[in-house]
Amino acid sequence: MAKQLTYGMVGGGPDAFIGAAHRKAIALDSSAKLVAGVFSRTAEKSRKMAELLYLDKERCYGSYAEMAEKEAAREDGIDFVVVVTPNESHYDICKTFLQNGIHVACDKPVTVSYEQARELEELAKEKGLLFMVTYTYTGYVTMKYARDAIRDGLIGDVRAVMAEYPQGWLAKEGDFGGKQGEWRCDPKRSGAVNCLGDLGTHVENAVATLTGLKIKRVLAKMDCIVPGRVLDDNDSVLVEFDNGATGIYWTSQIAFGADNSLRIRIYGSKGTILWFQESAEKITVISEDGTIREIHRGYPEIGEKAAKYGRLPSGHPEGWIEAMGNLYRSFTECLNAKLDGTFDESMIDYPTVEAGAEGLAFVEACLKSSQNGNVWVEL
Amino acid sequence: MAKQLTYGMVGGGPDAFIGAAHRKAIALDSSAKLVAGVFSRTAEKSRKMAELLYLDKERCYGSYAEMAEKEAAREDGIDFVVVVTPNESHYDICKTFLQNGIHVACDKPVTVSYEQARELEELAKEKGLLFMVTYTYTGYVTMKYARDAIRDGLIGDVRAVMAEYPQGWLAKEGDFGGKQGEWRCDPKRSGAVNCLGDLGTHVENAVATLTGLKIKRVLAKMDCIVPGRVLDDNDSVLVEFDNGATGIYWTSQIAFGADNSLRIRIYGSKGTILWFQESAEKITVISEDGTIREIHRGYPEIGEKAAKYGRLPSGHPEGWIEAMGNLYRSFTECLNAKLDGTFDESMIDYPTVEAGAEGLAFVEACLKSSQNGNVWVEL
Amino acid sequence: MAKQLTYGMVGGGPDAFIGAAHRKAIALDSSAKLVAGVFSRTAEKSRKMAELLYLDKERCYGSYAEMAEKEAAREDGIDFVVVVTPNESHYDICKTFLQNGIHVACDKPVTVSYEQARELEELAKEKGLLFMVTYTYTGYVTMKYARDAIRDGLIGDVRAVMAEYPQGWLAKEGDFGGKQGEWRCDPKRSGAVNCLGDLGTHVENAVATLTGLKIKRVLAKMDCIVPGRVLDDNDSVLVEFDNGATGIYWTSQIAFGADNSLRIRIYGSKGTILWFQESAEKITVISEDGTIREIHRGYPEIGEKAAKYGRLPSGHPEGWIEAMGNLYRSFTECLNAKLDGTFDESMIDYPTVEAGAEGLAFVEACLKSSQNGNVWVEL
Amino acid sequence: MAKQLTYGMVGGGPDAFIGAAHRKAIALDSSAKLVAGVFSRTAEKSRKMAELLYLDKERCYGSYAEMAEKEAAREDGIDFVVVVTPNESHYDICKTFLQNGIHVACDKPVTVSYEQARELEELAKEKGLLFMVTYTYTGYVTMKYARDAIRDGLIGDVRAVMAEYPQGWLAKEGDFGGKQGEWRCDPKRSGAVNCLGDLGTHVENAVATLTGLKIKRVLAKMDCIVPGRVLDDNDSVLVEFDNGATGIYWTSQIAFGADNSLRIRIYGSKGTILWFQESAEKITVISEDGTIREIHRGYPEIGEKAAKYGRLPSGHPEGWIEAMGNLYRSFTECLNAKLDGTFDESMIDYPTVEAGAEGLAFVEACLKSSQNGNVWVEL
Repeated sequence: MAKQLTYGMVGGGPDAFIGAAHRKAIALDSSAKLVAGVFSRTAEKSRKMAELLYLDKERCYGSYAEMAEKEAAREDGIDFVVVVTPNESHYDICKTFLQNGIHVACDKPVTVSYEQARELEELAKEKGLLFMVTYTYTGYVTMKYARDAIRDGLIGDVRAVMAEYPQGWLAKEGDFGGKQGEWRCDPKRSGAVNCLGDLGTHVENAVATLTGLKIKRVLAKMDCIVPGRVLDDNDSVLVEFDNGATGIYWTSQIAFGADNSLRIRIYGSKGTILWFQESAEKITVISEDGTIREIHRGYPEIGEKAAKYGRLPSGHPEGWIEAMGNLYRSFTECLNAKLDGTFDESMIDYPTVEAGAEGLAFVEACLKSSQNGNVWVEL
Repeated sequence: MAKQLTYGMVGGGPDAFIGAAHRKAIALDSSAKLVAGVFSRTAEKSRKMAELLYLDKERCYGSYAEMAEKEAAREDGIDFVVVVTPNESHYDICKTFLQNGIHVACDKPVTVSYEQARELEELAKEKGLLFMVTYTYTGYVTMKYARDAIRDGLIGDVRAVMAEYPQGWLAKEGDFGGKQGEWRCDPKRSGAVNCLGDLGTHVENAVATLTGLKIKRVLAKMDCIVPGRVLDDNDSVLVEFDNGATGIYWTSQIAFGADNSLRIRIYGSKGTILWFQESAEKITVISEDGTIREIHRGYPEIGEKAAKYGRLPSGHPEGWIEAMGNLYRSFTECLNAKLDGTFDESMIDYPTVEAGAEGLAFVEACLKSSQNGNVWVEL
Repeated sequence: MAKQLTYGMVGGGPDAFIGAAHRKAIALDSSAKLVAGVFSRTAEKSRKMAELLYLDKERCYGSYAEMAEKEAAREDGIDFVVVVTPNESHYDICKTFLQNGIHVACDKPVTVSYEQARELEELAKEKGLLFMVTYTYTGYVTMKYARDAIRDGLIGDVRAVMAEYPQGWLAKEGDFGGKQGEWRCDPKRSGAVNCLGDLGTHVENAVATLTGLKIKRVLAKMDCIVPGRVLDDNDSVLVEFDNGATGIYWTSQIAFGADNSLRIRIYGSKGTILWFQESAEKITVISEDGTIREIHRGYPEIGEKAAKYGRLPSGHPEGWIEAMGNLYRSFTECLNAKLDGTFDESMIDYPTVEAGAEGLAFVEACLKSSQNGNVWVEL
Repeated sequence: MAKQLTYGMVGGGPDAFIGAAHRKAIALDSSAKLVAGVFSRTAEKSRKMAELLYLDKERCYGSYAEMAEKEAAREDGIDFVVVVTPNESHYDICKTFLQNGIHVACDKPVTVSYEQARELEELAKEKGLLFMVTYTYTGYVTMKYARDAIRDGLIGDVRAVMAEYPQGWLAKEGDFGGKQGEWRCDPKRSGAVNCLGDLGTHVENAVATLTGLKIKRVLAKMDCIVPGRVLDDNDSVLVEFDNGATGIYWTSQIAFGADNSLRIRIYGSKGTILWFQESAEKITVISEDGTIREIHRGYPEIGEKAAKYGRLPSGHPEGWIEAMGNLYRSFTECLNAKLDGTFDESMIDYPTVEAGAEGLAFVEACLKSSQNGNVWVEL
């Protein structure tokens, strides 16, 4: 029987949405047990959080460096760390844990530059450590199905991709979307991008996951629409893939009425696949002869490889936390395999640091394109 | 700070869908920690399950009676028990735990007769114990919103209710839907009803929750449609409520293409509310002047009382496990309040054994109506 | 080449919605040319209407009796009459035209009693005249497809039918829905039924058309919900078909938010068909193995027999007037065949007076059931 | 009382889809009566068509030039001509009728170059003649509503436009979509564009109609995706409007599963409007505070100016022919006003030749952009 894995968390204090989400996603399937953490830069806040989470006091640390070192030294030290701090700190934190021989799961974007991401990728490889970047949307069963189906030729060659990810939470003038919005719209904390970094990387990753294609070049128009902003809040990107396929990526934070509307439509030489995040329990597949089928998460067509992540029969909706939970299920399965010596690369069914690096390459190319007057930039 | 509650489980062995669902729903929010159990009638199976769940060996018991007694005797004994065994055993098990002073959460239907349910209700009251019946669908945020909105007069007086709950998993001739289907279609194990007991009780409870109305009388046509069956697999029920409103309840297991399609439409004197389980992240509200609004789980209109159960912003789907988790959040909140002496009845925001008894009264009346040639039967 | 058919109209004055609709439906495909009429009981109004329609003055008659007689006497007399007067007058008018040897298209319900309808049926047969009753919804291409598909066994034996037709236009207290509503809610003008006569007959006809089944017996609960009304405005009907299948028909005028929401769901032993009037450009077909297909009006699956009624490629919506136009296309095709001697009964692809009579049998049985305390009544 | 207008048609022979559509759209409301025509270049075919349409033989002409001249000379000559020939012939035909003093309704695109269109615009103005270009989609009641609502400030300033128009009929390799497809994909007959000319002009016109904005510049990527083609079959266009708003226009003929999926989403500073052609009976309006409303064609919110085009209550679907019919209703209303001297420009509620010219300017700019490596081109 598999050992119960344990993990520590950096970030995820009392008001942090994403940290709590990761904890729920892991707890849902008892994938691992939280035993250590640094939940805030403020020691007091961190302690309070640790208490709420019923942690041993001694494993609530003063800094991530201390945590990495001490947990690495313990016989019962954490199996992996979950990094859910603001983006600019990911690089240092992840590097520290890798250097201490601890596997890493980090929120996206994995770093704030392509260079940093590549460095972490190298380091993880060198150390033989697993490194997951939590692109949540790739965890959905229907997305896994679509990925497998496309690779198996269900829709033939991919010809065109229409991908969009509008949100509306930053649409109001004078409203920077609360704490999270302020941070995202502040160039000091977010660097040169806002919307494209947050949403564009999800789009890039989802399309790459689904199609298996590499982007050859991009032409981006990054707009800053709401008066008072200095970073992009609406982005239009033309994409050319290595197989010659064409694409449009649209991301926005100013679309009143859009909650979290990631939608990907993939048009191939033998059919079409439509995957919409907000209704990801179902997926639409259209074949060459015009047959339009609606396939549900729990249906036989889904195939074993994707279906194994389902927990409930169709019609009992699974959602976003379940999708993230699926990432952790594969990650901890791989970890267990590492521990008992049965691991091999083909087992990986979660987004890795390599995918994280590709996201940053995409963002950097778009930025260059936009700054140079919307010209093509190779990746 | 609140104590970490602990619970034990009766049922929920390796192949049991519903037991795993309860554990996930509780784990999702760390509402309580599983520390004891009898997971199967077969000792070996039960032990194996306990091991998979990382339980102390000594708290994996040979029988529910032993468990009730021993846990009651421990200083750190379980705070509550979760009963997820086949229906006919609920009564004895729940009674035993109540008699040992342990709070109960039991899957629906709470018992197989109204009389039994009323007895448990009395016993729980007498002992001052909490008793939740897990009608999962009442846990959805949008259903809570609708309930509150209707009570606050948003759609005026309820005039008509169209409620339906079709499934298709038992539609095939010669196919009894695997293990679960066989059990449900077997009069020896299910008693006199199949479909109406499983789905009809959900419908009854959901409508009662939403409208606050009592059923005055029913006229039921319970059909056994698929050749080879002896219990109902499709039921049509005409309903009259105490305020004079009219209703139709339809439940079915023979509806090819329906997964789990609980849909409730409530027509009032000042508007309409449409709530559909499979898309419960959204709810439609129509007002007297014809304005059709789509309200999302995370929107301000939802109101604090319901919104507090949401975990994620709108557009990040929550589903069925989250709905069940919401029941446990209220249940454990009440339990904590019991422990620190702040509990009062108005805190209860989960379905109680009383609701469970009403469900059985409904089933018994329908059965009588159907057996007597589809005549009106008072509840 | 076919002769251009001509027709006359009784009813359809300046404020009459349904008369204008018939004229548009006929004009759409130039199925026939309007050349005569009595458009109102008031001579002045009738003349005015005739003028607006560019009619010869001499063919604007003072009474339907005069029109029937004089048109019958003309060499170039009308080929058929369209009767779009209030229901209670249908019988006399239709009878007069039949007696004068003129083919009839009459709005539904064809008469106000089953007996009358049967008499007209006999008379038409005796005279060898065509008699169409314009149940518009049977004109939709997708309904024709479904009818053919069901007869060809696509979903096996029909087991259960869920049919509903809610509207909301009479939901407001104190509001009798304008001129049309006042008339419908007035027992002096509508007889003993309102909602069931208007909407229930459509439901009955649509289900009969689709399934080819006869109703064996009904159990009806006809409610008068809005205070101040004396006729039914919400009806629940349990139905048993001659093959043993079961059904629920729900019709309502008090459903705020429902425009004209005729929806029919047919569950068979090998699949399901879902047909919804408000989105009749598409139809959903589910097969035994769970495959859910969405078929569009213009797709090859539709089959020649139904597809020939389409005018535009899929995605160019056709609607209600087109559906009615389809009835007139078949009616005038049959008429032309009558004229050139090629007619045979199997050409009829429109609802006949026989279907009209069945609708009245249904209404009369429901009324009897409801008046006798919701008991079963055989048809 | 208004005179019954008459019209002639050039094009619209036996196999021509669009000619029949225009005739139906005009007949639907008896907007005018067809009395003359040249239906084909082949005299025989033309005569046959005239016969099918019950036309006077003498008004079936051998050429459009003859028709223009003779009809102009008749006292009862046609009031207007409908031009539904292949695109490259529009210019000559329209010019001839204008020169003969006859009003013109021409299918889109009005000509094959911007210069030609401007010349016709000038000529019509000079002659004081009406010139409609039948952009059908602007005839929908909900589009008229949206146009009015946006101009009245319902969604504030337009900030971003997402417009798309995918079809799938040319997606198959080796399949040029029958007769119509062959013509569209043939540079000899279609000039330099296929998809963008057919669909892009609709998108351009619909957005211009809705927003009232002018395009400042475009950046287009016109792709020829299906092997064997030489003209574009998938186009991505970035758009900048004169008020600084941004847009993406996507048109495609290779999207398996898309019938005729024109969808326009307009994001403003105070809300959002979503208009989808295939479900144009409803429109979604989202306000600044997040309220999502679904407004139906026949609802009071639609406003008198748009609502007057509706023929049926909501829930009785109107479609594409009705939309085109609406164009002709306004056109013939204006014509009647011309005839009785009450016309003024503000009455025009149909797309004019000016709008036609703008469409060609858009196409020409896109073509230039695409040929020059996807650079910005000013309009």
